Amino acid sequence: MDKIRRNERMTAMMRLLVGSPNRIFTLSNFCNMFGSAKSTMSEDVDLLREVCREFDLGEVETVTGAAGGVRYRPAVSREKAREYIAELCGRLSGTERVLPGGFLYYSDILSTPDTVNRMGEIIATEYYDCAPDFVLTMETKGIPVAFSTAHALGVPLVIARHSSKAYEGSAVNINYVSGSGNIEMMSLSRRAVRENQKALIVDDFLRGGGTARGMVELMREFNVEVTGMAFVMAAASPEKKKISGAKALMTLRVSDGEFPTAEVQPAEWLADPV
Amino acid sequence: MDKIRRNERMTAMMRLLVGSPNRIFTLSNFCNMFGSAKSTMSEDVDLLREVCREFDLGEVETVTGAAGGVRYRPAVSREKAREYIAELCGRLSGTERVLPGGFLYYSDILSTPDTVNRMGEIIATEYYDCAPDFVLTMETKGIPVAFSTAHALGVPLVIARHSSKAYEGSAVNINYVSGSGNIEMMSLSRRAVRENQKALIVDDFLRGGGTARGMVELMREFNVEVTGMAFVMAAASPEKKKISGAKALMTLRVSDGEFPTAEVQPAEWLADPV
Repeated sequence: MDKIRRNERMTAMMRLLVGSPNRIFTLSNFCNMFGSAKSTMSEDVDLLREVCREFDLGEVETVTGAAGGVRYRPAVSREKAREYIAELCGRLSGTERVLPGGFLYYSDILSTPDTVNRMGEIIATEYYDCAPDFVLTMETKGIPVAFSTAHALGVPLVIARHSSKAYEGSAVNINYVSGSGNIEMMSLSRRAVRENQKALIVDDFLRGGGTARGMVELMREFNVEVTGMAFVMAAASPEKKKISGAKALMTLRVSDGEFPTAEVQPAEWLADPV
Repeated sequence: MDKIRRNERMTAMMRLLVGSPNRIFTLSNFCNMFGSAKSTMSEDVDLLREVCREFDLGEVETVTGAAGGVRYRPAVSREKAREYIAELCGRLSGTERVLPGGFLYYSDILSTPDTVNRMGEIIATEYYDCAPDFVLTMETKGIPVAFSTAHALGVPLVIARHSSKAYEGSAVNINYVSGSGNIEMMSLSRRAVRENQKALIVDDFLRGGGTARGMVELMREFNVEVTGMAFVMAAASPEKKKISGAKALMTLRVSDGEFPTAEVQPAEWLADPV
């Protein structure tokens, strides 16, 4: 019966760890749940770690110290990430998804849970070490992937709006120059973030970097440090962006001509070893 | 060693099943992955089912037939759902979160992954039997919870916009009367949904039901059946909504007076046995 109990404990732990990524569960937490000794739980955790490693299912880590315990991170290896993104690029390339004006239709990709979660995990993997306190995005299209990234990092999502809303309370509004050269507004509730926190910016598309720069300026108003910027897609042109240090998963080129064609490629950094 | 292998298989399966809720994995899928016989995998699945039942971690189900296999649903029992929502209501009630105009600040709740996922699972539990093909929401605040619901149901999310965008391609636009009595526009890309699908509407707030009715009308334009409507919060007044059959998780009353107070309560249906 003891062996069966180990199956039960490990499976239940896996379910709980996967449901709350990057959150530290204390061993006593699990000891109480299963009525087991700490040494037994430690062995279970070691086995969990091995299984995740063997099947490339993310990382189970033991965190030592006063606030120690065990946590799960849905980390994706560079190799798997590149493979996944390359497959996605294949689906997005060609003539079918090109819209008038040279835009690419990929809203479906941005809201299909399996795809979005995988992209969120790939982005989160790059920023675990930065330990952001929250993920910031600008409404609307990037919200699902920003949410998935926040979930994988175990932090809240914060959504900046185009205008201030009565149900957000008092807000900080800034003006910024959008990609199309217009002056636009960005608004964030005062209650949404606290001073001296660290933000990770996540959004769906990077063209010139106007909106991203707006978000950086917005964070400055809150005395928040931007610890990274990640995008699903970056336009190949303009090559020079208004921000630096951004990571995109894919790069988009749309050819001119009678039958405009999208050429979507995995970002170069995905080919680097970690 | 055989017992250890069972631990490994069960843990890895749990990880994969939980990552893609409501998706049917064939047994041969798992047989190939682990190099095990079907009878062994069947036993593993039986054990997984028992563990999930014992610790109230959702449902592992065997689906028979040609497209059969095993699937996981993060179903939440009525009792657990009521308990969770009641705790949330406690955090939202009182004077602190009331804004000028009688609005309630709860954007933080709507974008904290753990909370949002739990709400999504509670909503999904109610609609597994309806088998919607996608979840529909209207930008912006309801997107995370609609996304989580879609994830739990294993279907895509579809986001209606306030205006049509060049990067969404050709769209269907409708006018509707909002809660404040204004005529507003709602837009959805033609590519987003197909005829004869079934939609589940999920949004953050239900006041008069104007926006919800707009979404129902939008779906009619696409020849899509609305199979259910779920909201995080419903205003107690007006009592009569422009739509019927909606389920909200919580009900909101805000008292007048010098210190307006929010009274947030779990929806009555949560107290019904299933």
